[in-house]
Amino acid sequence: MSTSTTQAPAPAIARSDFDLNAWSGLRLSQVEQALQRWVTADVPLGESHGAPAQLVEAMRYAVLDGGKRLRPLLVLAGHEAVNPEAQSAHAQAAVRAACAVELIHAYSLVHDDMPCMDNDVLRRGKPTVHVQFGQASALLAGDALQALAFELLTPQDGSVPEQVQARLCALLARAAGSAGMAGGQAIDLASVGQPLSESQLRQMHEFKTGALLLASVMMGAQCGEPSPHALQALRTYGSAIGLAFQVVDDILDVVADSDTLGKTAGKDAHANKPTYVSLMGLQASQAYAQTLLGQALTALDHSMLEHTEALRALADMVVNRAY
Amino acid sequence: MSTSTTQAPAPAIARSDFDLNAWSGLRLSQVEQALQRWVTADVPLGESHGAPAQLVEAMRYAVLDGGKRLRPLLVLAGHEAVNPEAQSAHAQAAVRAACAVELIHAYSLVHDDMPCMDNDVLRRGKPTVHVQFGQASALLAGDALQALAFELLTPQDGSVPEQVQARLCALLARAAGSAGMAGGQAIDLASVGQPLSESQLRQMHEFKTGALLLASVMMGAQCGEPSPHALQALRTYGSAIGLAFQVVDDILDVVADSDTLGKTAGKDAHANKPTYVSLMGLQASQAYAQTLLGQALTALDHSMLEHTEALRALADMVVNRAY
Repeated sequence: MSTSTTQAPAPAIARSDFDLNAWSGLRLSQVEQALQRWVTADVPLGESHGAPAQLVEAMRYAVLDGGKRLRPLLVLAGHEAVNPEAQSAHAQAAVRAACAVELIHAYSLVHDDMPCMDNDVLRRGKPTVHVQFGQASALLAGDALQALAFELLTPQDGSVPEQVQARLCALLARAAGSAGMAGGQAIDLASVGQPLSESQLRQMHEFKTGALLLASVMMGAQCGEPSPHALQALRTYGSAIGLAFQVVDDILDVVADSDTLGKTAGKDAHANKPTYVSLMGLQASQAYAQTLLGQALTALDHSMLEHTEALRALADMVVNRAY
Repeated sequence: MSTSTTQAPAPAIARSDFDLNAWSGLRLSQVEQALQRWVTADVPLGESHGAPAQLVEAMRYAVLDGGKRLRPLLVLAGHEAVNPEAQSAHAQAAVRAACAVELIHAYSLVHDDMPCMDNDVLRRGKPTVHVQFGQASALLAGDALQALAFELLTPQDGSVPEQVQARLCALLARAAGSAGMAGGQAIDLASVGQPLSESQLRQMHEFKTGALLLASVMMGAQCGEPSPHALQALRTYGSAIGLAFQVVDDILDVVADSDTLGKTAGKDAHANKPTYVSLMGLQASQAYAQTLLGQALTALDHSMLEHTEALRALADMVVNRAY
């Protein structure tokens, strides 16, 4: 993304000439600014003072360290598909939803990296949160990030209608919980070295990563006023790319080198974790990823939504990425 | 509480002859049944199946093991003060709020007991969750319990108005987060062996235990249609008993024996943790607890609410309990 583009106001992007980098650059800069503002010690609770500085420092370290920000982009793309006007009255809700989903993702990485889970000491080239701040602080920072996600969805300033707040909380809670991300991690933990069928593997991934990716799209849509038909199409799209994301992860674990990947290649196979590649083989996995991309795009074709360029480009990026 | 009372329909309790045991018995049985029903593998997410059994088992072990259930009782008492009709349209919301608050409390105990925090191996006479299920499962069960709390507050069956859902999520998220429970635990972690002023000690406890106790009362009230005046009175009440709860905890740590307390007496002093007793002395702490009880009751006197018997009795119980 060029720096100059991120400084300028949103350009009108012609449908036939959609530039994902330009589109993402603007939105990422908005999300980063919002995260900088909201992950602070200044969240008031009644008459109490702000959050303790040492906890907030660990939370900021966990959140403000980059990453692809795929989930926030899916929220905003889902929102814009339903509410194409850039200055929609619901834009505030969408930015909050984008940040909330990223906080849930960030907290899951903090807890996942802890010694009792994956015991990772590096993430994106930096010491993991528990290495930097200690395990107790990592545990609490993760816990507080999850709560903060729901705080962001329920502003008390009238900027987001309460009906929208309730729907966003409902979607996020289910995607994060025992039949979502946390549940998927529990299945993952229990499955190391176990033979899984394709349907068991699919369920694990639907929970572990798919649920939050799907919720991102749906939360974006729920910031506006989607038709039931559009919601159904977006659900199909979100499910397909949620699954595709994991299939491609498994492929990249085999074909990419560690430098490109930014993490240790071959780690899953080494850990004897079931993957799509171990189950279906490499070539069939690659074909399956393309099939899922096709399903996602077909769902958008039938959505009767006019502004699905960003969703299309993000689906393509998820499936055809190199890292 | 007598078993026969918990089986019978709610008796009309005369104001002058309020029986806390009878009142609590009925409500506790309702809360237990609701928790039994809601902490299960049957929380559906779209077309996916339920949560993994091993995770749900750890969640149930953490939640369904008794405890005083003070927070759910405060929710229901707060609700009944604002909505005295037993069959209020908002009763469903209040039971959900009562359970949600208890899930947050339960998850905090699971994470608190872990080796990187307090490293406790027993709670209420049973092995703690990480001893029973392993640290990774304890971590995930806590995470999933927090998410489940917000799921309970956002039912999709129309039983709770979305406006109420949003307000309940807002209160719970703030009470659980970095300027609430998690923040208080972070201050507590950092304060071992440190001299704290009374105002620092108060802030730690306002966050660590006070915020969730206050939120319990306020969430109960927000299930109905409280006047601003009543809300202000309930806020004063909730803040006073939230603080009193901790002052009394500190007193009991000194004066009670371990058998009565159900946990190791003298533990805080032994750990060189700052307490009200170490700061003010025993007698002044006891007087302070009674002062706070007086503040709570006076707030109710001025609330213009007619049915505050249960809130009064709970305040008295918090301050004058023996364990």
